[in-house]
Amino acid sequence: MTTGFSQVKQKVRGSFLKQTVMATLGASIETIEAGEVSIKLPFKEGLSQQDGFIHAGVITTIVDSACGYAAMTLMPDEARVLTIEFKSNFASPAIGDFFIAKGQVIKAGRSIMITSGEVHAYKQGSEEAKLVSLMQATMMVINP
Amino acid sequence: MTTGFSQVKQKVRGSFLKQTVMATLGASIETIEAGEVSIKLPFKEGLSQQDGFIHAGVITTIVDSACGYAAMTLMPDEARVLTIEFKSNFASPAIGDFFIAKGQVIKAGRSIMITSGEVHAYKQGSEEAKLVSLMQATMMVINP
Amino acid sequence: MTTGFSQVKQKVRGSFLKQTVMATLGASIETIEAGEVSIKLPFKEGLSQQDGFIHAGVITTIVDSACGYAAMTLMPDEARVLTIEFKSNFASPAIGDFFIAKGQVIKAGRSIMITSGEVHAYKQGSEEAKLVSLMQATMMVINP
Amino acid sequence: MTTGFSQVKQKVRGSFLKQTVMATLGASIETIEAGEVSIKLPFKEGLSQQDGFIHAGVITTIVDSACGYAAMTLMPDEARVLTIEFKSNFASPAIGDFFIAKGQVIKAGRSIMITSGEVHAYKQGSEEAKLVSLMQATMMVINP
Repeated sequence: MTTGFSQVKQKVRGSFLKQTVMATLGASIETIEAGEVSIKLPFKEGLSQQDGFIHAGVITTIVDSACGYAAMTLMPDEARVLTIEFKSNFASPAIGDFFIAKGQVIKAGRSIMITSGEVHAYKQGSEEAKLVSLMQATMMVINP
Repeated sequence: MTTGFSQVKQKVRGSFLKQTVMATLGASIETIEAGEVSIKLPFKEGLSQQDGFIHAGVITTIVDSACGYAAMTLMPDEARVLTIEFKSNFASPAIGDFFIAKGQVIKAGRSIMITSGEVHAYKQGSEEAKLVSLMQATMMVINP
Repeated sequence: MTTGFSQVKQKVRGSFLKQTVMATLGASIETIEAGEVSIKLPFKEGLSQQDGFIHAGVITTIVDSACGYAAMTLMPDEARVLTIEFKSNFASPAIGDFFIAKGQVIKAGRSIMITSGEVHAYKQGSEEAKLVSLMQATMMVINP
Repeated sequence: MTTGFSQVKQKVRGSFLKQTVMATLGASIETIEAGEVSIKLPFKEGLSQQDGFIHAGVITTIVDSACGYAAMTLMPDEARVLTIEFKSNFASPAIGDFFIAKGQVIKAGRSIMITSGEVHAYKQGSEEAKLVSLMQATMMVINP
């Protein structure tokens, strides 16, 4: 990747650090590529719904950020990103040692980007991943 | 309300206490009526996205629970509730002293309930409310 | 209403006439108010899914147009409207003598409008309406 | 494929023929595989919105059916399929000589199936396809 893309990565990482909720949840950026970002959330007490699974809203928080940052990688330098809306389906209970949320740009328009997100649950020491959530989200490009 | 409904309220409050994420966020139940539940979230550091607003995923967490518990109030005693999917639009940045998420049942089917949710932002000492988010969610009735 | 609004109505009716699918379906505009438009679809053969109900996509066609035109009533004269995305829940089978789709603007932004739509089924000679579909849609304001 | 799957194909084709809206639109089944069905819609007058593009609702009609039939291929013989809800993003105007809607099962549960759909526009004699719409839909398995 060119120097250009390392600046993009820096922009994404800088913005992520300002998302104070990510520290509260214990989430971190896993990978940043052009049009694709993944975020890791280790299992943690204090994030559950009534059955002990990670709350659907917490899962949605990390995949929304993954989709937003995936969009940011394809935006002009000065542009900001804003979630217009998202829709999530829940495929299995969020049980596992850690979760990976992957966001991907499906269509990069000048003012609107369509993104797709997935969250998988993993167990330590196992390759197997289980689909937890599937998202379709619309991001807005805010030019200064 | 009859004794029956005070049992429903107890069921909702008991389940809410098990949602450990609610204590982490600092959210509490505001009102419980048949087919309608509201949850209050005071502004708190550590829940923000990159611009200092409450993260869309956090807003979604409280309104998902409000919709789920609204559905629970219309379910048989032993039934559990599960979010199948939701869709949220974001109308204004989540800035304010506190936020109220209201969930409402639009159609109560035997196995599927359609719910609608709204989150408003409030400033202390002001009557004015600003729409932050609008949700449409599908809940499943899990019979034992 | 002022002359201004009768121009808005004219703009909406003119655009509706260009939607050739509306004639194919047999749909017509029922009411136009600021921020709210309703469209009527009489039951007709040739629009059904496999059980004889009106196909969910047809129901979605009329409520998408109702939401889009509701948005148009609040736009500048020269602006065009474009559906960015929508989400629909289906509450009951689309059975009836006619259907009314109502679209309503929930939040009118400069470039994005959030709209909400409902379709009800009616029987001739009866006041009773049955909710068929609930939509949440995002419209874009296209300025020339 | 086994005899079993040719019965599944027959079930899908039989149900499709009962969807009278498909004949009205001029749509036909293109392919049927386990968990994946595609439907073709040639361009036709009388299906447009105000700018001459195929109406978003028409595009949604064919991709909803593609998703529903994809789900049906993984259901027990006697089961019926019902669309609970869907969400569609629109990526480009529906202009072209024909359109292919592909529906795919992402998660096949016993009572709920999560599906994903795409519609592409094609020009006669060209390999190039343009993404028109992206759908995420929830299907219900109705057991007798």
